[in-house]
Amino acid sequence: MRALVYHGPGQTSWDTATDPAIEDPADAVVRVEATSVCGSDLHILRGDLPEVKPGTILGHEAVGEVMEVGRDVHDLRPGDQVIVSSVSACGHCQPCRDGMYGQCRGGGGWLLGSLLNGTQAEFVRVPFADYSTHRWPSALPLDDAVLLAEVLPTAYEVGVRNGHVGPGDTVVVVGAGPVGLAAVITARIYSPRRIIAVDLSPSRLETAGRLGADAAELPGRLIADLSEGPGADVAIEAAGDPDSFILCTRVVRPGGHIANIGTHGKPATLHLEALWRKNMTISTGQVDTSSTPWLLDLVTSGRLHVSQLVTHTFALDRMNDAYEIFAHGTDTGALKVVLHRE
Amino acid sequence: MRALVYHGPGQTSWDTATDPAIEDPADAVVRVEATSVCGSDLHILRGDLPEVKPGTILGHEAVGEVMEVGRDVHDLRPGDQVIVSSVSACGHCQPCRDGMYGQCRGGGGWLLGSLLNGTQAEFVRVPFADYSTHRWPSALPLDDAVLLAEVLPTAYEVGVRNGHVGPGDTVVVVGAGPVGLAAVITARIYSPRRIIAVDLSPSRLETAGRLGADAAELPGRLIADLSEGPGADVAIEAAGDPDSFILCTRVVRPGGHIANIGTHGKPATLHLEALWRKNMTISTGQVDTSSTPWLLDLVTSGRLHVSQLVTHTFALDRMNDAYEIFAHGTDTGALKVVLHRE
Amino acid sequence: MRALVYHGPGQTSWDTATDPAIEDPADAVVRVEATSVCGSDLHILRGDLPEVKPGTILGHEAVGEVMEVGRDVHDLRPGDQVIVSSVSACGHCQPCRDGMYGQCRGGGGWLLGSLLNGTQAEFVRVPFADYSTHRWPSALPLDDAVLLAEVLPTAYEVGVRNGHVGPGDTVVVVGAGPVGLAAVITARIYSPRRIIAVDLSPSRLETAGRLGADAAELPGRLIADLSEGPGADVAIEAAGDPDSFILCTRVVRPGGHIANIGTHGKPATLHLEALWRKNMTISTGQVDTSSTPWLLDLVTSGRLHVSQLVTHTFALDRMNDAYEIFAHGTDTGALKVVLHRE
Amino acid sequence: MRALVYHGPGQTSWDTATDPAIEDPADAVVRVEATSVCGSDLHILRGDLPEVKPGTILGHEAVGEVMEVGRDVHDLRPGDQVIVSSVSACGHCQPCRDGMYGQCRGGGGWLLGSLLNGTQAEFVRVPFADYSTHRWPSALPLDDAVLLAEVLPTAYEVGVRNGHVGPGDTVVVVGAGPVGLAAVITARIYSPRRIIAVDLSPSRLETAGRLGADAAELPGRLIADLSEGPGADVAIEAAGDPDSFILCTRVVRPGGHIANIGTHGKPATLHLEALWRKNMTISTGQVDTSSTPWLLDLVTSGRLHVSQLVTHTFALDRMNDAYEIFAHGTDTGALKVVLHRE
Repeated sequence: MRALVYHGPGQTSWDTATDPAIEDPADAVVRVEATSVCGSDLHILRGDLPEVKPGTILGHEAVGEVMEVGRDVHDLRPGDQVIVSSVSACGHCQPCRDGMYGQCRGGGGWLLGSLLNGTQAEFVRVPFADYSTHRWPSALPLDDAVLLAEVLPTAYEVGVRNGHVGPGDTVVVVGAGPVGLAAVITARIYSPRRIIAVDLSPSRLETAGRLGADAAELPGRLIADLSEGPGADVAIEAAGDPDSFILCTRVVRPGGHIANIGTHGKPATLHLEALWRKNMTISTGQVDTSSTPWLLDLVTSGRLHVSQLVTHTFALDRMNDAYEIFAHGTDTGALKVVLHRE
Repeated sequence: MRALVYHGPGQTSWDTATDPAIEDPADAVVRVEATSVCGSDLHILRGDLPEVKPGTILGHEAVGEVMEVGRDVHDLRPGDQVIVSSVSACGHCQPCRDGMYGQCRGGGGWLLGSLLNGTQAEFVRVPFADYSTHRWPSALPLDDAVLLAEVLPTAYEVGVRNGHVGPGDTVVVVGAGPVGLAAVITARIYSPRRIIAVDLSPSRLETAGRLGADAAELPGRLIADLSEGPGADVAIEAAGDPDSFILCTRVVRPGGHIANIGTHGKPATLHLEALWRKNMTISTGQVDTSSTPWLLDLVTSGRLHVSQLVTHTFALDRMNDAYEIFAHGTDTGALKVVLHRE
Repeated sequence: MRALVYHGPGQTSWDTATDPAIEDPADAVVRVEATSVCGSDLHILRGDLPEVKPGTILGHEAVGEVMEVGRDVHDLRPGDQVIVSSVSACGHCQPCRDGMYGQCRGGGGWLLGSLLNGTQAEFVRVPFADYSTHRWPSALPLDDAVLLAEVLPTAYEVGVRNGHVGPGDTVVVVGAGPVGLAAVITARIYSPRRIIAVDLSPSRLETAGRLGADAAELPGRLIADLSEGPGADVAIEAAGDPDSFILCTRVVRPGGHIANIGTHGKPATLHLEALWRKNMTISTGQVDTSSTPWLLDLVTSGRLHVSQLVTHTFALDRMNDAYEIFAHGTDTGALKVVLHRE
Repeated sequence: MRALVYHGPGQTSWDTATDPAIEDPADAVVRVEATSVCGSDLHILRGDLPEVKPGTILGHEAVGEVMEVGRDVHDLRPGDQVIVSSVSACGHCQPCRDGMYGQCRGGGGWLLGSLLNGTQAEFVRVPFADYSTHRWPSALPLDDAVLLAEVLPTAYEVGVRNGHVGPGDTVVVVGAGPVGLAAVITARIYSPRRIIAVDLSPSRLETAGRLGADAAELPGRLIADLSEGPGADVAIEAAGDPDSFILCTRVVRPGGHIANIGTHGKPATLHLEALWRKNMTISTGQVDTSSTPWLLDLVTSGRLHVSQLVTHTFALDRMNDAYEIFAHGTDTGALKVVLHRE
């Protein structure tokens, strides 16, 4: 088959690779109908994630058709259409029983496109298939479905749920990239009073307004007014940047919540000398994808509208073009970029 | 009357001062039966809290008898025995209605011994008296009662409750001073599996063992084993030190909670590059004293044993000796030091 | 002044009555700009609430202008425009401090139009005025404002919040009168998947559809399908009828919630022989009006649209006509009926 | 092998039966080291549970040694010592993923000794073995271990957790049989202020006192005083009787919780005419056994002392004697009766 192979920092190529096969009785092999590119793929390319070894096929978001299943797979059969979650879960360990799949102690966690070959390929081997896939309802458009593999559950679980977004809240989302905007969209479920998106890119701010942010601004007047005034109920860090994190701690009200979604490569300064009295909570987290069935239900029942998050689609073999346009999202306006099997 | 007056960093004296009187209809004047010294008094002396002006009478913990009440006071009359909370609450603003007295927007908050004259005196004017005092049951020993003015609600609300201590938990308390040990004691209410106290002072560790910690150690093997192994469910920072805070972030398990009680004078480094994936929460907070009635009930019904937190008592006019012994707690073994009216 | 006086079961008249005056320092006197009729007024007329004595002025929902305040009132002054809550709260007792105003132990609770003269009058004395009124923002239409006196907080607190309505839920509301429909509207805040209104009156079902129910039916096929199938996540009883309550227990799924809002005059049968295994919760409750500030914020910020709940308005002196049309709501289509000062 | 076979209402015998074998790849066969008799076994004998067919081997609590496992079983091997939960869980369906094993939709639920042959036998086939057993730590005494199969998780999950027992609470437990007393013991974890056990049997009341109830009485003065006075925070129904349920609704305070554990054969009257204003919750439920690992940890770490719940032990072949003494528990003082393999 053909696949996007990582050859070390800054280097990938669309190569011929061995077709995946069942290696463990809990595996499934899935033919990729659509996959997408994620910010963490760019982190890998920058060499920020040394656990990803050269030779690995990248990608951890996909929808596709089950081709073959191991003998321990109960819930899938060949021909099933599935969403492949970015997180693989053994389903047996205590964290998995508690729905904390991202913290799986039975061999799961973020494997695809990281420790194992991933989804930016014609086929992918999905470990722990029963607990790592979700049925893809035929009524759900392909590009919506691929968003359920990671970006929507991440924005919801790590941002909206951990941040305790509630009706009437003022919510600040710092970073208006794909996951930040997915947080804007999923926060809407709870009827907040006002969602303010903050970014350094005017084009992304414009997009944020289009996707439902009530205000979208550079860090400036609005944030200063909130910081000196009532404060935000919830601040969501979706930029992965130390300064953005500090901005969150400033803008949140006493008693408010900061939910960190961003992938960070550096420490941030926590101004405890100011914050110790502020009755706030900070949460961090990696997605579990435990909310996927519920989000799937919200999308299919029309309660959650996500299509605008996909800005570009390509044929699978145009993977390099997709990376290019995604990597320059602030110029190209790219949010999620989806690649389709022809 | 006589009172401990702050004259600027490093300087206090036991002076003659004007007797307090009702200034606002919601005030009460209380004759102090007992007061105590708190770590934040030492912060004031070090000049860390510039909002405290020279000329202020210090102290924010007391029990005593109501001498006089303003015409708006409903719940108290002269002769009532009361616990005076460190936090004064207007009772009318939204934070007060939500029980967040420490964040009062109606003129309350931490006033006594800070923005107003405090309790280390023969008499004290208590603003917003209805919402800032609690009836002192006659069966409750004086020294237990004074603990309910601040140290117990702080340890419980900011440490145990914010940290979500639950049955079976492993709890690490960093800092075995009075508030840290009060956290050890109040955490016991929830039947944790194991409470580990950490401090740099061998004498405080010895005390921690005596007060119910299951283990008490210097930061070392035990913490390293937890950090590399299962991790603690809850880490409570009760030292007010950047390194202690970092230790808390290391020792807590994925999905665990860090509750900061410590008063910090400096920022800490938050290692988001390691923590962003760790599904943890960090909470900060200043006491509300909203839990006082409930803690009072637990102490009077024998469900919470707190007497050992008081190690020294003095007559009120020996205030300077009390500060001396308290300030050198790691040598003298002093935890809470209580001063009694003769 | 003129007021609607209760003269015993079945008898009221629009009488001349003594103007109210401050009787207690915490009182305010309010000139009624608008008041409304509530289902419990009809219960009183039927003699179901014997604690209401002949001679009492009825009514417990109003907005108006403060004319005079007692000397203990802090938060109001003459000229202020206020919403008068149906529940009066002393603000001092423990239930009040916990926000459970309906269970006030300091002399409050449901007083207006019940134990004290009420709001269906030109003027009303409001006890505990600080804790029993809310500022009426000038931008908020009069008829929306009067809904915040009771019907909206009741529907939200006792129905939606106690029923734990959440995104994606299937919600059944039994009883499509004013409070049931207010539950339909306030449930929307949480993006449920589907709200099904059930009533015996075709006209009310038609209204339910107009106000946002996804389905509106007689108890029949839809309920049977849910009961035998997946079940509802939440069932809200808003009819005050034993059979409606039983229907709720049938339609809810294992693990679901039943929230009773209805005022009941008779016991219901609880089929524990079927329900003991069903992992469900049942909640009951009287409104606290603690959610009013928050609902007010949602209405004024455009997150909650409530105007359609008011179907008829009258001049204040047409009180008898208002009762007539309200009492026959299933024929007249009346939901909330509001009376305006000329 | 030998086993206790149900032959229809009132009839059982200790028969020779076919040894169980692996029938499904997820099965395990366990040699029973200890089993016990449960109140629901008596319900079966009375014919209250017609889904149990004659010919079924009874019993749903056991500890034992794994003899053989199906090829889908991952977490067990022959020789492992295990606790066999009363509830079998497929581990794949949504209720199982949410930890609601008792509501399993994948073929699990209460199977052993009900729809399938049970544990009162020399060997038992355990379906869905990975999700239906827990490792039995060698340090845990046999008789403590068997309590973890059902009675402890039932008392905790359905009584203490659903009832929201908290520190300082007044808890009333109605019914001082094995599960009621297990609720008394597990409620202690949360440091309630006072636990009052109520029963009609003086001997059971005496036992309740010995096991840690602060008061143990016939329904009378104590309950009347609570009902007319402050009320209980939590009332736990552990008798399965309509009058006991009504007593719970009377004794609970406004804002309190009623947790039903009892197995009911008849409806109860719910006095909604009194309760609609009472802001209370009622919960029902069947055990999930999701709390077993956590309870196991509390027992093994010495935070929960349960041994006194076992009053009698027998050799396995004295099953009829065990039933006899258990069925007359109010006379014999029997609580849990455990049968040991010789």
